[in-house]
Amino acid sequence: MAEFINVAVDAMGGDHAPAEIVKGSIEAVNENSHVKVFLVGKEDAVRRELSKYTYGKEQVEVVNASEIIEMSEPPVMAIRRKKDSSIVKALLLVKDGICDAYVSAGSTGATLVGGQVIVGRVKGVERPPLAPLIPTEKGCALLIDCGANVDARPSQLVQFAKMGSVYMESVMGVKNPKVGIVNIGAEEEKGNALVKETFPLLKNCPDIHFIGSIEARDIPAGYADVVVCEAFVGNVILKLYEGVGGVLIKKVKEGMMASLRSKIGAFLVKPALKNTLKAFDLEQYGGAPMLGLKGLVVKTHGSSKAVEIKNSILQCITFTEQNINQKIKEKITMEEE
Amino acid sequence: MAEFINVAVDAMGGDHAPAEIVKGSIEAVNENSHVKVFLVGKEDAVRRELSKYTYGKEQVEVVNASEIIEMSEPPVMAIRRKKDSSIVKALLLVKDGICDAYVSAGSTGATLVGGQVIVGRVKGVERPPLAPLIPTEKGCALLIDCGANVDARPSQLVQFAKMGSVYMESVMGVKNPKVGIVNIGAEEEKGNALVKETFPLLKNCPDIHFIGSIEARDIPAGYADVVVCEAFVGNVILKLYEGVGGVLIKKVKEGMMASLRSKIGAFLVKPALKNTLKAFDLEQYGGAPMLGLKGLVVKTHGSSKAVEIKNSILQCITFTEQNINQKIKEKITMEEE
Repeated sequence: MAEFINVAVDAMGGDHAPAEIVKGSIEAVNENSHVKVFLVGKEDAVRRELSKYTYGKEQVEVVNASEIIEMSEPPVMAIRRKKDSSIVKALLLVKDGICDAYVSAGSTGATLVGGQVIVGRVKGVERPPLAPLIPTEKGCALLIDCGANVDARPSQLVQFAKMGSVYMESVMGVKNPKVGIVNIGAEEEKGNALVKETFPLLKNCPDIHFIGSIEARDIPAGYADVVVCEAFVGNVILKLYEGVGGVLIKKVKEGMMASLRSKIGAFLVKPALKNTLKAFDLEQYGGAPMLGLKGLVVKTHGSSKAVEIKNSILQCITFTEQNINQKIKEKITMEEE
Repeated sequence: MAEFINVAVDAMGGDHAPAEIVKGSIEAVNENSHVKVFLVGKEDAVRRELSKYTYGKEQVEVVNASEIIEMSEPPVMAIRRKKDSSIVKALLLVKDGICDAYVSAGSTGATLVGGQVIVGRVKGVERPPLAPLIPTEKGCALLIDCGANVDARPSQLVQFAKMGSVYMESVMGVKNPKVGIVNIGAEEEKGNALVKETFPLLKNCPDIHFIGSIEARDIPAGYADVVVCEAFVGNVILKLYEGVGGVLIKKVKEGMMASLRSKIGAFLVKPALKNTLKAFDLEQYGGAPMLGLKGLVVKTHGSSKAVEIKNSILQCITFTEQNINQKIKEKITMEEE
């Protein structure tokens, strides 16, 4: 059993739980024999879904949890009160060392709060950021931080840069990842108080590849591999990516349906278009890791279907095998000396 | 001559100056007999361009300015030192009451600084915001503030909401415009320190139609007509709109060129697609007004061609006719009582 990478999956979280969560989990274990999933949720509902599939029994375990934390619940209160919820019980599996990682499509707030108070931070980490991968023209970039803790301090942003660099190098295989700080101009003297204070700290950081300021316009173009910002700005960037992308694709579709001529064109162009647009789909990258915790906590999109759940679970393998948390610890501690 | 709306145009600003600036100015005067443009710049260069066109001589005046403020110059210094620059001289025409409005495709920083120190603020206005129109699924919204002054105070954001409401109602004809504050969640308790402090002030503001928080995802969907935020976030939103839009449209084009089949499709779909995508083009809305100044100051995109210059000049007519500055003054002063 020691050979497995154990992943605690919140079977009740997200718009399509438990059906798609269970389906994605089974797809993951059937694709990789080194993974074991712990499906945490209402046992009868989970078993009902499980009965639909064939899989190695030693790779799946069901952990009963009678409660569910809803998307709308205030996270701190929910984590404190709902001790028998799927989120709390799944996080406890990580805390207790039974699981290496946690995946949930449920409440982001509860996952972020629970990650901190239940799993706990790596020593030295001031604030664990939520860091989704976002598509760029050249591939993808890590947007760090998009979490719930806004109004960050400069020292925290420096840690984001370090943790993000470890992730992009070790998990995504980007050699010497380029780190940029989100700013309103390319010049060093530009920015708000936070950015102005953080800039020289990043510049003097020997163990990252800092390229300076990055304007929002240049994020989708892929100028930086690690896009550092405070959580409020990160959240705006992530959600605007989604929003602008969604409306534009809708407009493209409307345009194609405008006339008979364009409809015929649309029929011909569709397969090729689907392929290129897929490369710019936020959801293809699976979950967003919360970095700097003692275990891996991954938050996937609330609308995740089986494929995203599967990808999020498989992503935990590289993360664990690469020993990211140890590398983060070393990089953070190095700074403190 | 009193019947004209007089617009001072920076003939030397922007990537395509002076040719496209002069061309757009002539197109504006030829389209509307109530406009007079004051072309401010190197007289010989401007006259050389002017000689290409036919127009009513009483509608065009050339004002010589020997210097040019470059895009890369630190704005405060440039405004102070280059007294004979096209930007400074054009702004002085507004300050001296000779012109009602100013249009420039040149340095944003110099226009913002010059607007404040040369033209001056309307009494009661704490900070004049730069407020571009951005495309949405339903039409457009005013993004306020995208200027150079970051780290705004709550009282300033309240003024942005009021000024933006006046603009959308009087210039764009939106009845009772919906005001939203950019936030990272819909709930009132979410947000950073600034948003949390501003939210109740906006809620208690009787003379605007406040709809609460707006997540970045919902901006392109058109949930709000006036999108209130501090300048750092506004700048990120504006530039990410551009960036995501640009990359996505490039991806669509690439997809269409992927195979022979898709190429034929692209040929058929192109005209219809061009039309719908045009509605989502940031540049179609002409210039961004800087609100709360004693005259109208409009900044257009650095890459502006004749059509954008023309639109920006024509936009000054509605602004002046609607007496926006008087309305802003009334709305701001009302608050102070």
